[in-house]
Amino acid sequence: MKTDLDALMQSRNLDAILITGSAQHNPAMYYLTGGVHLTNADLIKRRNDPPVLFCNAMERDEAAKTGFTTKNLADYNFNELLRQAQGDYLQAVALRYSQMLTGLDLTSGRLGIYGRMEVGAALALFAAIKQRMPELELVGEYGDSLFLEAMATKDASEVDRVRRMGKITTEVVGQVADYLTSQRLQSEVLVNADGKPVTIGDIKSRINLWLAERDADNPEGTIFAIGRDAAIPHSTGSAGDRIRLGQTIVFDIYPCEAGGGYFYDFTRTWCLGYASDDIQELYQDVRDVYQQIMSELTVGAYCPDLQKRVCDLFEVRGHPTIQSNPQTEQGYVHGLGHGLGLQIHGRPYFGKNATDTDRLSTGTVTTIEPGLYYPERGIGVRLEDTLWVRPDGKMEILAEYPLDLVLPMKR
Amino acid sequence: MKTDLDALMQSRNLDAILITGSAQHNPAMYYLTGGVHLTNADLIKRRNDPPVLFCNAMERDEAAKTGFTTKNLADYNFNELLRQAQGDYLQAVALRYSQMLTGLDLTSGRLGIYGRMEVGAALALFAAIKQRMPELELVGEYGDSLFLEAMATKDASEVDRVRRMGKITTEVVGQVADYLTSQRLQSEVLVNADGKPVTIGDIKSRINLWLAERDADNPEGTIFAIGRDAAIPHSTGSAGDRIRLGQTIVFDIYPCEAGGGYFYDFTRTWCLGYASDDIQELYQDVRDVYQQIMSELTVGAYCPDLQKRVCDLFEVRGHPTIQSNPQTEQGYVHGLGHGLGLQIHGRPYFGKNATDTDRLSTGTVTTIEPGLYYPERGIGVRLEDTLWVRPDGKMEILAEYPLDLVLPMKR
Repeated sequence: MKTDLDALMQSRNLDAILITGSAQHNPAMYYLTGGVHLTNADLIKRRNDPPVLFCNAMERDEAAKTGFTTKNLADYNFNELLRQAQGDYLQAVALRYSQMLTGLDLTSGRLGIYGRMEVGAALALFAAIKQRMPELELVGEYGDSLFLEAMATKDASEVDRVRRMGKITTEVVGQVADYLTSQRLQSEVLVNADGKPVTIGDIKSRINLWLAERDADNPEGTIFAIGRDAAIPHSTGSAGDRIRLGQTIVFDIYPCEAGGGYFYDFTRTWCLGYASDDIQELYQDVRDVYQQIMSELTVGAYCPDLQKRVCDLFEVRGHPTIQSNPQTEQGYVHGLGHGLGLQIHGRPYFGKNATDTDRLSTGTVTTIEPGLYYPERGIGVRLEDTLWVRPDGKMEILAEYPLDLVLPMKR
Repeated sequence: MKTDLDALMQSRNLDAILITGSAQHNPAMYYLTGGVHLTNADLIKRRNDPPVLFCNAMERDEAAKTGFTTKNLADYNFNELLRQAQGDYLQAVALRYSQMLTGLDLTSGRLGIYGRMEVGAALALFAAIKQRMPELELVGEYGDSLFLEAMATKDASEVDRVRRMGKITTEVVGQVADYLTSQRLQSEVLVNADGKPVTIGDIKSRINLWLAERDADNPEGTIFAIGRDAAIPHSTGSAGDRIRLGQTIVFDIYPCEAGGGYFYDFTRTWCLGYASDDIQELYQDVRDVYQQIMSELTVGAYCPDLQKRVCDLFEVRGHPTIQSNPQTEQGYVHGLGHGLGLQIHGRPYFGKNATDTDRLSTGTVTTIEPGLYYPERGIGVRLEDTLWVRPDGKMEILAEYPLDLVLPMKR
C-alpha cells in the first residue's frame, strides 16, 4: 500500500526515488499523483518526506491538484542550460536534472528510478545524469520493484475502485450474453435482424460502446476468441469471424477507469446453444480445478505454490501442463493468476519471477484463472475472477457472475 | 517513412535495432507489427534484413499475423537459464537476450534500443546484457531517435488512417456543438431537460461515448476547459464545472484508433451565445496569426523558424510570448505545433529540441496550433488543425471544420 512506501525505500536502502514521464499510462506516476493530466513531469521523493512534483508551466494547475509541492520546470531557464551545454539538448536536460536533484540536497546516496518511457531515451538520459553526478547511485529495479511491491496490496479506496470496475465489467458481460442469445440463426450461425452474420468485430465494437457508456475504457483490447483461436490463450479473436453454436468462446475482458485508472479482469467460456461432450468434459475439469483452488486459498499462501497445486490438479486429470513440460502448447499452459490494479499485470507473481513476497497477503488483489487449451481440437476453456484478500482473511470475488458454459439461445 | 528505416540505421551506424515491450501503447513496436496483440515481445532487425519477432507461446498466433519470422521464447528453456544464472531472474533474462542476439549473429557492432518500458527495469536489464556482451554497443537515442525520424513522414496508408480519425474527430466535435447549443438556459447557465446544470463531466462522458460509437478511443483524455481553466493550455477542465454563456471554452480533442493506433489532434475555441469585445479581439488575433502562418507554410520550412515567425506575429500585436520572455504565463506560451501519428506528440519538433531534420518535409503530418492565454482575465483561445504536407507540396488540413468562435444557442 501507499503507506508502505517509506518502509519499502528503507528496506531497499534508497534515499530517494524519482518517477518520470506522463501521469497517464504510467502506473507509478498515476499511483502517487492520482490521475491528474500531466504529459511530462518528474516526481522526486526523499525517504520520509512528501513528494515534490516538477511540471511544465502549462500544466501547473493540473500539478497543483495533487496537493504536493510543485516546481515549475520553466524556472530552470532552459536557454541558459542549453548555452552551458554548448547547444546539446540531452546535456541541457541532464544539467536540469542535476539542478533539480541538487536543489533537494540529493547529490549522493541511492536514488531509485521509476516511470515508463522510451528505453533508448532512458538509457541516454540516465547515463548523462550519472556522468554529471558521480556520487549519486542510480538504482534500477527489475521485476520486483518498490512500486510493484507497494501496489500489490490495496487500501479500501483502491478496492472500491476495482470493485466498481468489476460491476461495470460484469454488467457489460451480461449485455454481451443477452445480445448473443437474442440473435437469429442461419444454419447454426448467428445473424442479425437484416440476416447478416454477426461477427466478432461487431461484438467488440459493442463491448467498447457499452464500456464507454459506463465511463470505462479498454486500452488493452478484449479477447473474444472462438474455436481454434480460443485455444490460444492470448489470441484476441479474428474480427471477421462468424459466431457458431456449439463452439467454445473465450471472453476475457479487462477494462479500466477512463483516463487510465484501475483495471478489472474477468473471463468466461461460453458455448451458444449447446456444448459437445468433449467440451463439457474439459469445461468440467477447469471448473473443478477452479473451485478446488478457490476453496484452498489462505492468507499468506505463496503464489508459486498455488501454481504448482493447480498443475498437479490438472495432471491427475490427465492434462499436460507447463510443469510436466515447459514447452507444451496443449493442456494448462499459463500461470494461475496475476496481481492487478493500475496495471493489468502486477504482483503478486505466480511464476519463476516470484520472490518471497509474492503471497496472498491481506490487501492483495489478484486474478485466479485456470484454463485448458487444445488447439488441434479447436477448444479452449478459461475461467477467471478477480479476488481481494480481505483484512478479515476472507477471499472475496469482487464481482460475482455465473460460471455457466452453455448459453441457451432465446429464439 | 517505414521504407527509410534501413537508411536511417545506416546514417546512425547501427548494425541492428531491438524493440522491446508490448505491441500496444508502444509506438515503435506498433509501427512495425501493425497493432497485433502482444503483451510482451522483442523484435530484432538487422540492417537490410527483415525483422525477427520473439514472442510468448501464448501469443504465437498474434505474432504470426505480422508475417515476420517468429521465434517462440519458450524454446529458450527458462528453467535451464535460471539454473545457469543461479536462480537470479534478471540474469536469466539477460542470458536469454544474449542467446537471442547471438542466434542472429549479433555479438558485436552497434545495437539501437527502442520500445517503451519501466525505466528502472530497462536500466537494470540493459546493464546486465551489456555485461554479458561487452563487444556489443547498446545505443540509446534521446529525442531524435530513428523511429521518431522515420515516423515524422507518413505514407499514403498512414495518412488515410489519420484522415479517417480526423473525420471521426470533427463528427464528434459537431455533435458536441449541436448538443451544447440545444440545451436550455437558466440565468445563462446550460441546463438539461430536467433543469439540472450540464457539467463538463457530462460533456466528457458524451465525447467518450460518441468516440466509442465510431470505434475510436481517447487514451490521453480530452481538454474541455472553460473560463480560467481555458487560459491554462493543458488544464483539462474541472468535471463539476457548469457551462455559462459568453465564456471561452477551449475544446482540444485527440483521439486515436481503438487499440492504440493513429491519432488526430484538433482544437476549437467557442463562446456559447455571445462573446465580449475583449474575447473577440483575442480570438481575432489568434485567427489572424493562424491564417497568416498557414498561408506562409512551404515544403522544407524549418519548424523552429515557424515558431519564431508566430512569436513575431503575436508580439507586433502586443502580446508577450515565450520568445520575449521564456517564463511568461500570459500571451503565447507554447510551441506552434508537433508531429503526430502513432503518438500524440512526435516529430517534427518546433522547439529547442529540434534538429536540422525538423522540417515540413513531404509526408509530414503536424499540428498548427497558435493560442493566447490570459489566466487573470479568465480567457484562453487556441485554434488547431492537423495538416499533411502532400507529395505535390500542398498543405492539406486533414479534416475541415469551421473556425467560428460564437455558437448561437438554438432556443
